[in-house]
Amino acid sequence: MDDHIAIEELKAEIPAVLVEIEQEISPLLSLGQVANYIPELSNVDSNNFGMAVRFIDGATFETGNSRTNFSIQSISKVFSLTLAFAILKENLWFRVGKEPSGNPFNSLIQLENEDGKPRNPFINAGAIVIADIISSHFEDPLNTTIDFIREIAINKELSINMGVLQSEKNYGHRNAALAHFMKSYNNIHSDVEDVLDLYFGHCSIEMNCFDLATAFLYLANHGIHPLTGKAYLNASQAKRLNSLLLTCGTYDAAGEFAYKVGMPGKSGVGGGIAAIIPGVLSVAVWSPGLDNYGNSLAGAKALELFTTKTGISIF
Amino acid sequence: MDDHIAIEELKAEIPAVLVEIEQEISPLLSLGQVANYIPELSNVDSNNFGMAVRFIDGATFETGNSRTNFSIQSISKVFSLTLAFAILKENLWFRVGKEPSGNPFNSLIQLENEDGKPRNPFINAGAIVIADIISSHFEDPLNTTIDFIREIAINKELSINMGVLQSEKNYGHRNAALAHFMKSYNNIHSDVEDVLDLYFGHCSIEMNCFDLATAFLYLANHGIHPLTGKAYLNASQAKRLNSLLLTCGTYDAAGEFAYKVGMPGKSGVGGGIAAIIPGVLSVAVWSPGLDNYGNSLAGAKALELFTTKTGISIF
Amino acid sequence: MDDHIAIEELKAEIPAVLVEIEQEISPLLSLGQVANYIPELSNVDSNNFGMAVRFIDGATFETGNSRTNFSIQSISKVFSLTLAFAILKENLWFRVGKEPSGNPFNSLIQLENEDGKPRNPFINAGAIVIADIISSHFEDPLNTTIDFIREIAINKELSINMGVLQSEKNYGHRNAALAHFMKSYNNIHSDVEDVLDLYFGHCSIEMNCFDLATAFLYLANHGIHPLTGKAYLNASQAKRLNSLLLTCGTYDAAGEFAYKVGMPGKSGVGGGIAAIIPGVLSVAVWSPGLDNYGNSLAGAKALELFTTKTGISIF
Amino acid sequence: MDDHIAIEELKAEIPAVLVEIEQEISPLLSLGQVANYIPELSNVDSNNFGMAVRFIDGATFETGNSRTNFSIQSISKVFSLTLAFAILKENLWFRVGKEPSGNPFNSLIQLENEDGKPRNPFINAGAIVIADIISSHFEDPLNTTIDFIREIAINKELSINMGVLQSEKNYGHRNAALAHFMKSYNNIHSDVEDVLDLYFGHCSIEMNCFDLATAFLYLANHGIHPLTGKAYLNASQAKRLNSLLLTCGTYDAAGEFAYKVGMPGKSGVGGGIAAIIPGVLSVAVWSPGLDNYGNSLAGAKALELFTTKTGISIF
Repeated sequence: MDDHIAIEELKAEIPAVLVEIEQEISPLLSLGQVANYIPELSNVDSNNFGMAVRFIDGATFETGNSRTNFSIQSISKVFSLTLAFAILKENLWFRVGKEPSGNPFNSLIQLENEDGKPRNPFINAGAIVIADIISSHFEDPLNTTIDFIREIAINKELSINMGVLQSEKNYGHRNAALAHFMKSYNNIHSDVEDVLDLYFGHCSIEMNCFDLATAFLYLANHGIHPLTGKAYLNASQAKRLNSLLLTCGTYDAAGEFAYKVGMPGKSGVGGGIAAIIPGVLSVAVWSPGLDNYGNSLAGAKALELFTTKTGISIF
Repeated sequence: MDDHIAIEELKAEIPAVLVEIEQEISPLLSLGQVANYIPELSNVDSNNFGMAVRFIDGATFETGNSRTNFSIQSISKVFSLTLAFAILKENLWFRVGKEPSGNPFNSLIQLENEDGKPRNPFINAGAIVIADIISSHFEDPLNTTIDFIREIAINKELSINMGVLQSEKNYGHRNAALAHFMKSYNNIHSDVEDVLDLYFGHCSIEMNCFDLATAFLYLANHGIHPLTGKAYLNASQAKRLNSLLLTCGTYDAAGEFAYKVGMPGKSGVGGGIAAIIPGVLSVAVWSPGLDNYGNSLAGAKALELFTTKTGISIF
Repeated sequence: MDDHIAIEELKAEIPAVLVEIEQEISPLLSLGQVANYIPELSNVDSNNFGMAVRFIDGATFETGNSRTNFSIQSISKVFSLTLAFAILKENLWFRVGKEPSGNPFNSLIQLENEDGKPRNPFINAGAIVIADIISSHFEDPLNTTIDFIREIAINKELSINMGVLQSEKNYGHRNAALAHFMKSYNNIHSDVEDVLDLYFGHCSIEMNCFDLATAFLYLANHGIHPLTGKAYLNASQAKRLNSLLLTCGTYDAAGEFAYKVGMPGKSGVGGGIAAIIPGVLSVAVWSPGLDNYGNSLAGAKALELFTTKTGISIF
Repeated sequence: MDDHIAIEELKAEIPAVLVEIEQEISPLLSLGQVANYIPELSNVDSNNFGMAVRFIDGATFETGNSRTNFSIQSISKVFSLTLAFAILKENLWFRVGKEPSGNPFNSLIQLENEDGKPRNPFINAGAIVIADIISSHFEDPLNTTIDFIREIAINKELSINMGVLQSEKNYGHRNAALAHFMKSYNNIHSDVEDVLDLYFGHCSIEMNCFDLATAFLYLANHGIHPLTGKAYLNASQAKRLNSLLLTCGTYDAAGEFAYKVGMPGKSGVGGGIAAIIPGVLSVAVWSPGLDNYGNSLAGAKALELFTTKTGISIF
């Protein structure tokens, strides 16, 4: 895939591929279920669909509502993990595991069986531990996190949707349960409230597909953002974070996603999914209707069509 | 057992039985493990042993440190359940189950599998729901609960140990997790903090064996306190509460307790156990060293010897 | 309850009580679900209802189809446990636990978590271990078991329904799974097939309510059959077996049964339930329609009405 | 990676890389635990280490005991899955899932929670369903399977170790439990004994590293064996099978393996691991000492060193 000619041929195909995808996913838009646990998410129109592809040389291809902001939710866990991984390096794994959970993303069962150490950084419990690490390390952890996301998205305008944030806090009893539970095992060091403020804060950031594809480029380029030259992870760390995305990035459907899509990626209940082909490109899709696992139904199909039609895959 | 002569014969045996029990349990005092999750409990001398037997006519037999106060902890769940049962009657069981849990008392696993409805009112989650019911019903729920316990113990001096209370709150992250978790299922209606204040409050009350035996007499007498004549439950309710004590009252060792002791009873991690023979008597023991299930090791043995030596049992 | 006059008063009430019970449960007969995993059970008419009460002096009260044979199924586990308990005494509990399971009767989950030792002798796995103990001890274990049941039922005509037995074997893959699983933990010593032959054999015995009430009398009389004078267990063992019936005898609804009925008892999916009041009486009911837990729906209600109307209960 | 020059440069590096690997893993040989559930496996010398790399053009690099036969055990599940996948195609997934299990490979817990449908084809339950599919489809399923493996390994001498086979059957009670359990859910159609004969049969085949690397080449080449030109899967199926290897191929350590090694691969308790880089090469290692998850300790480290030193990875 690092062959220059193959990449140029791939680029040439993409516009037609995106047109086909948009047509083929159209009947699926009404089948998903928009997240309904807070009003700010449930009110989003399920007919939205956007997609943006960015190559590591900056080439961009977009379709649909690719510049409409949406709540990135759990996709933000990739960014907070990057910050925490850069701080603790391999010591991070004393606090959180790196295995698929085999259970719903907000389950407490496994956490109890494994003494308060979450299975991986992408289930809620794991992301709360990651938030705790960032909280304990930075003076102003939420702004540090937001500034980092603005930097990799190359967009200073990114911000938190305060309505979403407030609702998340009001309905966040299960995440509070997870945090208190892990604190009872000494796996949360800061105050539970501070940790949850950071966690709910980064989940409430809004981005669009173009921003998100831009922000994932460092993962497609061995840890260095190809458009700014700034290094966030070394090559080995980027490779390892990508493996985590593949095995754990799409909730309890990671096997299905790897099987059908074949790209490391991360989804959020706002309907976004971002994924990469190492050395080649990043892609972000958005469609608010979710499948039973909490992944965007039309979005996952769009990515499956993308890898099927172009023939790219890590496998 | 309601035969008058048999009761008088039983009374005549008790003094000698208590002497034997105190001798026989003596080697066990050093084998238990004093609760160590808060300093106020871990500092209690494990050589303590007290026992008090009260018949429904008021006859009393005591041995050892039967007038030394200790933290009643989970035994208080019987009193709070009595209050909540009197409020909601059979509707109570929409909020909490009445089956043995088969799991440790503070487990979240079953709670998740059963959508936030605790298995029974004696595991922590169930007692927190009970505290929520009381919180929602009374203006000053903690004082109402304490006053009720003072009334049935016929002792106005009973009070909360403030050191225990403060420590419980400081180390109470797992109970906070349970409460937040159930609130995410809408099975906690009041504020989590208020509910936990009541829960930790009644668990931090101190009593001695004599007080405790007195306080359990209404359960031995069809819901009516035989020494005051005041009714707290009707006969059917008292019978039903006793069945819950038998099947669920001693954590994950209820089967063992029923097998060896054969009395409905409730234990606490402070080392107390209170039990009854319906229509006859109540008995309270205290010894701080616990077995693996969190029940007083010497206390449970004392009760086993008590039923074996006297031949009384519900079975 | 051992007061002679009280017993005679109770006897005088029973005929009218049985008439009322039969009327009151009548609307429930159509609500239960007859066991449908084998044709021999699913073909039984759900309108059947029988009940027999026997006092330890032999006094008998019956109503409905109390002399119609039915498949005793899991009620037979009480008889096989009695045999195994008499063989191994307290060593029995190294092979099987005595705690409520909190899980469905044929679950493998707990068994795996607890290394192949079943929670109690009344869940299928536990009864299979009991069958293994009997298999390893007697030359002809099945005939020994049947002869024992004939003896306590004082009925030499009792026999296995061969159609039921054959169907049980054909559909018994889950029990085979339990046996093989425990054998992998070395908790089955005989051949799996031999053990299952005994297990399915005693479950396929047919009895009627009168036989069953007769057969339970030794449990109501401290281990000695009051009508033959033969001792099967000592008083302590009988007391302990009764405690197991109370905490574990009615599948995952033991708490509910203790709460509403208040008698130690054992149910079977053939629709029978047998129960006792220590020192007083045994009672057997039969109605084939089951509730969600596998207990006879009308039968459990009949027993609840029996204890409510007569005021007898162990609590 | 499909760049011709890059491949040739990679080949040039391999001999030195293999020398380094053999030195670096040497201290680890004594740390693993040889499988001890059957004598035939426990008697294997833990100092064995072999490794073979084969490129899709047939270029071969070997070191250590790469031509010593060992028991392939669970690696054979890849071959049986290939046969079953070719038979049922996407309908296969009605019988078995494609998600990581998050539980030990021979667990029954998840199987019960998910009604007898195994999580994926590489846990024992899943492989037994695969064996059932093959059993139901071929006249002589075991010979068909062995012939298939001989064909892809290009080695007609491959055969079953009869001592291993006999021991597997003697100690196979847990697998018998899995099979009976799934049959109770109608997810096994053939006779349990026949299915287990096939399952134990293919697990008992012996191969060496060279054979195994040869046999995996079709997975590195889009389903077509590059050395024979014979097609076993289409490109999409091969891609999908590789994704399953990555997410589920190394027991409960798939996340760790993906994180550290970054190749789709499959391990067996005989100490073998086979893995591929799509479009490039296959690699097989063998060292009998296992880690806590049942994967070859030195073997997994050798593969980690291989990808780290060469810089190849799918991520």
